[in-house]
Parts: sequence; structure tokens; C-alpha cells
Amino acid sequence: MQVKILTNWIGVRLMRIPYERMFSEFLRVLIKTGFEGDRAKLCAKLFTDTALDGVYTHGLNRFPRFINYIEEGYIDIHARPELIEQAGTIERWDGKLGPGNLNAHFSMGRAIELAHKNTIGVVALKNTNHWMRAGTYGLQAANEGCIGILWTNTMPNMPPWGGKESKLGNNPIVFAVPKEGGHVVLDMAASMFSYGKLESYARSNKPLPVDGGMDHEGNFTRDAKVIMETQQPLPIGFWKGSGLSLMLDLIGASLSLGQTTFEIGKESAESGLSQIFMAIDVSKMASYDLVLNKINETIKDLHNSTPVVEDGEVTYPGERMLKVREENLREGIPVEEFYWEQVIKM
Amino acid sequence: MQVKILTNWIGVRLMRIPYERMFSEFLRVLIKTGFEGDRAKLCAKLFTDTALDGVYTHGLNRFPRFINYIEEGYIDIHARPELIEQAGTIERWDGKLGPGNLNAHFSMGRAIELAHKNTIGVVALKNTNHWMRAGTYGLQAANEGCIGILWTNTMPNMPPWGGKESKLGNNPIVFAVPKEGGHVVLDMAASMFSYGKLESYARSNKPLPVDGGMDHEGNFTRDAKVIMETQQPLPIGFWKGSGLSLMLDLIGASLSLGQTTFEIGKESAESGLSQIFMAIDVSKMASYDLVLNKINETIKDLHNSTPVVEDGEVTYPGERMLKVREENLREGIPVEEFYWEQVIKM
Repeated sequence: MQVKILTNWIGVRLMRIPYERMFSEFLRVLIKTGFEGDRAKLCAKLFTDTALDGVYTHGLNRFPRFINYIEEGYIDIHARPELIEQAGTIERWDGKLGPGNLNAHFSMGRAIELAHKNTIGVVALKNTNHWMRAGTYGLQAANEGCIGILWTNTMPNMPPWGGKESKLGNNPIVFAVPKEGGHVVLDMAASMFSYGKLESYARSNKPLPVDGGMDHEGNFTRDAKVIMETQQPLPIGFWKGSGLSLMLDLIGASLSLGQTTFEIGKESAESGLSQIFMAIDVSKMASYDLVLNKINETIKDLHNSTPVVEDGEVTYPGERMLKVREENLREGIPVEEFYWEQVIKM
Repeated sequence: MQVKILTNWIGVRLMRIPYERMFSEFLRVLIKTGFEGDRAKLCAKLFTDTALDGVYTHGLNRFPRFINYIEEGYIDIHARPELIEQAGTIERWDGKLGPGNLNAHFSMGRAIELAHKNTIGVVALKNTNHWMRAGTYGLQAANEGCIGILWTNTMPNMPPWGGKESKLGNNPIVFAVPKEGGHVVLDMAASMFSYGKLESYARSNKPLPVDGGMDHEGNFTRDAKVIMETQQPLPIGFWKGSGLSLMLDLIGASLSLGQTTFEIGKESAESGLSQIFMAIDVSKMASYDLVLNKINETIKDLHNSTPVVEDGEVTYPGERMLKVREENLREGIPVEEFYWEQVIKM
């Protein structure tokens, strides 16, 4: 195994692991855990692709916790989504507490199938688990020529604006638009920084670039460690992100008949989530060439921005990911030894 | 006419005008301007309802500019939306540069009609004008028992993250969920503060409660006047709101075949906008009583928050509006003499 030594932005030693090597380690562990062949392969691919694209917190680094959740009985690896109700091009599915990424991949696949037939397709999924990287399913839609809009709720991990206790989730939402040469994909939590990001900043001893939550006195702070203590991350746009989180929660639970964040908070772990997957097959509509041209022109204009910092650049959501993906495919995926060793030993 | 004297939060003298009185003034002016009877009535009602609900910037205060746009030829008061394409439960309509609020009201009405039939309905509208208060059409959906998701693009008025020029719009988005005793409605721009809000703060000489944009040196500032000079308002969540704005723009223009913010920027005024209206008739799906109960329980939990300030309270989006509406119905709608006099003299 050829490895190169480098360090990441928080100063931790990294190795680079080739894509195929990482994939086969995941596959080995998943099969050992009891996954059936095809599902093990897809699950391993979703984790490896996530790390490949540079979302390390939800790729390799999350894999040990995923296996732990299975061992603790929160995830039923044999469960498959079950159709509960069909109402036009909206369908309600029960995730039966199966693996969150497999459930989400299935649900977005089904929404895309509906969109190919009816231009729009929506799957509302209840009783599912953490879907790992949200952007995965946006890319899935865009790869099939569809606009994707999808979101999940989470356990309570963010206070509503004006309140002290974490009663809202940080409910990531994804918007994806297919584009030649690289899809436009926004993958955004309703909190300023995810807990994964806070953890990284806390380990690095670096301050957050902007205020990220409240300290023990109720003041804004850039100290990630303190925010992890108070469990009071700031919503994006303060009162706005707080409202956004609530709306996504209410709509997701209403359409899926699943749990709201309030109900998830009564569980012993983050489980039984509600998710929405919407696909729109814009290529089925008239003048798709005009649409593609419109998107390209708008992105071109964005790229023509005068950067605020010298040598800076303005990019579209998903653009930097492409560069990371290319580099990681070529050089290997950077991993922290700490996490890699855990997987090797499984 | 009975009026009471009070002042608003920026110290400007206010009068209270009864709902019916304001409505009939708007109606008089609209008919004088050439609107046909039914359309004049609806347009007057939309403006009056907006002021009634406390969104003064887009009610009375906006009315003179609306009339001015008609006189300048940007709004064709006789134009009606025209169906361009039907693709399943998504429809493309051309707004023919008609009045933005009438076009939006029609489009949401059509989306609701589609939702009543097919559970979900989407109208993508191009070539329209400013829809005034965004929340109006979310309330419209919720009043018909539908979940509403809708957004618009705008002229360029916000820089993308990392860039100097305003190339993005602040693209308001609305989420609405029907609830007994008052709908949950979030009406949120992608910028921290709308230009209307900045104007009010600038007139009040009060600092913004949080950073709202960039000063001339590129630093964050709470000085609304300076932000109006630099035209660099901050997106909500910094890079996140910047990405959100782009996604809404691209999806809106793709589905409607209308202009992106980049294209609108080439016009001589803010005109030819692209908008999305989505309605989901959740009451057509199974176990609607369970959904309503779920929403009520979640809101109840939110209300149980410990407030961060003494005597504070945590509310859901749209809750405070209900109190303002009741007060204004009872006492009359507060107006600034400056704007009211303009309408009286029209």
C-alpha cells in the first residue's frame, strides 16, 4: 500500500489511501457485520465517495460510529423501506430503521423514478436513520438529470431563537441543479457550524471564522469548545435559521407521518428520523437547451466577480468539491490514522 | 375618520386608519389607474391585508412605488398569466409583466387547484413583477389546507460570498404549514436584512441588532446607512445564504424558463422576475388528524422553552403577526402620515 504523509488544517498527520483500498476495507467490515452483498457494496461506495469528495466528517471518520450504531441495535441492516401510501406523485415510505444511507439512496432513487414518469416525484420517508452526507442524494438526483430538493430532521441539537434548550434540529437541506461540467449542489445545515465542524475547530484550538454559538453567559462566541459545552450553536441568520429548521421539521414529519425533532428527542439515540426527497426532471420539459445555457451564463457571471481578497475566487456550491475529488482520485484519499486504524482492526 | 396618535419604533408619528378606510382608498386609486373592478378589489385587499398584518414596508409604504411602476410602464395592469406548458402537475406560466401581486395570487391559486386534484401542484411563473409581501401566498396556501413552498428571484442586490459586486438577489422564500389557531408561516429573504429594513434602521439612527453587511473597507458593520451605500448586505449564514440565493435563482429560472437574477440585472428596473409556487394538500393524505396533532405538540414544546431574556418568549414564525393583526383590526392600521398623504392625494 503506497501512502504519502501530509497534515490537515488542524495539524493532524494524514495518510493518503487509494479509493479502491478504502472501499474494500469498508466492504470487508460491512460483510463481516452481516450486510448482504449488494447492499454492502452500495453502503461501502457511499462512504468512500463521501470521503473522496472531501467530506471526511461523514466518510471514514463516521464509519466506526455507524458500525457501533448497528451493534447497539439502533440500525437494522436487513430492513428495507416499505411503501405506506401513494398519493399522486407523492409517496410515503417507512424506513423500518434500516441503514440511513441505503434508505436515503433508495428513496431518492424512487423520487427520480417518479420524476422520470411525471416530471416531479416526492418520497417522504419516516423511521429512518442518519443519512451520513446529505449532498450524496443531491448528486444522485443531478446525475440523473433532475433538480433535487431534500432535507432531514435530526435530534434536538440547536435552541430556537430566544430560547435556551436545544429543541430544534440543525436539519440539513440540499438543493441540486444538474450542470454540464459539474453539478451545482448546496448542502447546508440550519446551524452556522455542524457538530462535526465544531469538533474539528475544538481540536485545532483555532477560533471559528464567525460567531458560531452561545457561551455560558449567553453571549455570541467563536470558541468551538465552549459551544460544544453549552450545546447552543447559532442558527444561520439567527431568528431566520431557527424558523427554517422548524418549517423543515414540520413539513418533513407531516408528509412522512414520521417523528418531529421533539419526538426524536424522547428516543435514547438519534434514530427514527423524517426525510423528504424531491426530484424534478427538468429535461422532460420544453427547451432544456435554453435552461442549460441560462445556468452556464449565470455561473459565468458569478465567476467574473471581483474577489474581496487578492487571489480569491467566487465559486458555486459544489465547485471546490470537484477539485478535491480529482486530487483524491489521483493521489489517494487523505485519512487520519486514528480513524483508519479503527477500521483496519474491525 | 377616527385616528389615534402614536409613534413607531423609529420615532415617526403614526395615525391609525381603519381597515375599510385604507382598502377603499387603495381601491379608488387602482380604479383611477385603470384596473378592472375585480382586479382592483383583489389588489387593494392584498395591499391592505399586508399592512394589517404589520408588514408596513410592503403594504401602504410600497403602494406609491407600485403605482409609479405602472405609470413608468414596467407593470401592465391588464396582463394576465398565460399557460405555456403543462408537464404533469408542474405548469409553466408567463406573467406577461402583469401586476406582481395579482400574478402571484393567481399562480398560488392554480398550484392549490392542482394540489387539490393531485396532492401536489407546482406553478413556475416567468416575466412577472415584484409580488410585494412574500408571506401573502404562503398564507393563501395554508388557508386552503395546503403546505406552501414558494420563492422569487430579484434584481441583483447582494454580493456572492467572497465577491464585491451584487450579482445575487436576496430571493425571499416562504414555507407555510396549516395549523388550527394560526398557520406557521416563515417569510425569509436570503439577506440578513431586506433593503426595507435597512431603510428603517437608517432613518432611526439605530444600529442593526447583528452585523448586516460590509462597510467601505470590507469589514462587517451594523450601520444600515453604510450598507445602503456599499450595497453589500450580508447573506444569512454568510457563505450559506449566498449559496441558497443562487440555488433558488437557478431552480426558479430553470423551471419557469424565465430570467435569472443575472439577466434581470440587464433590465432598466426590477422587472421580469421568475417565481415558484408549490402547494401540497396534506389533508388529502391519510391520518391528517395525526399530522395536526404532531404539529400542535411540537409547537407546544417550543412554547415551553426557557427564554434567554426575562419575560421573553419563544414563538413560531407567524405567531406575532396574529397579535398585530388582531390589534390593527380593532384599533386601526398604523400608518406614517408621509405615506398616507401620498395615497390620499393620488
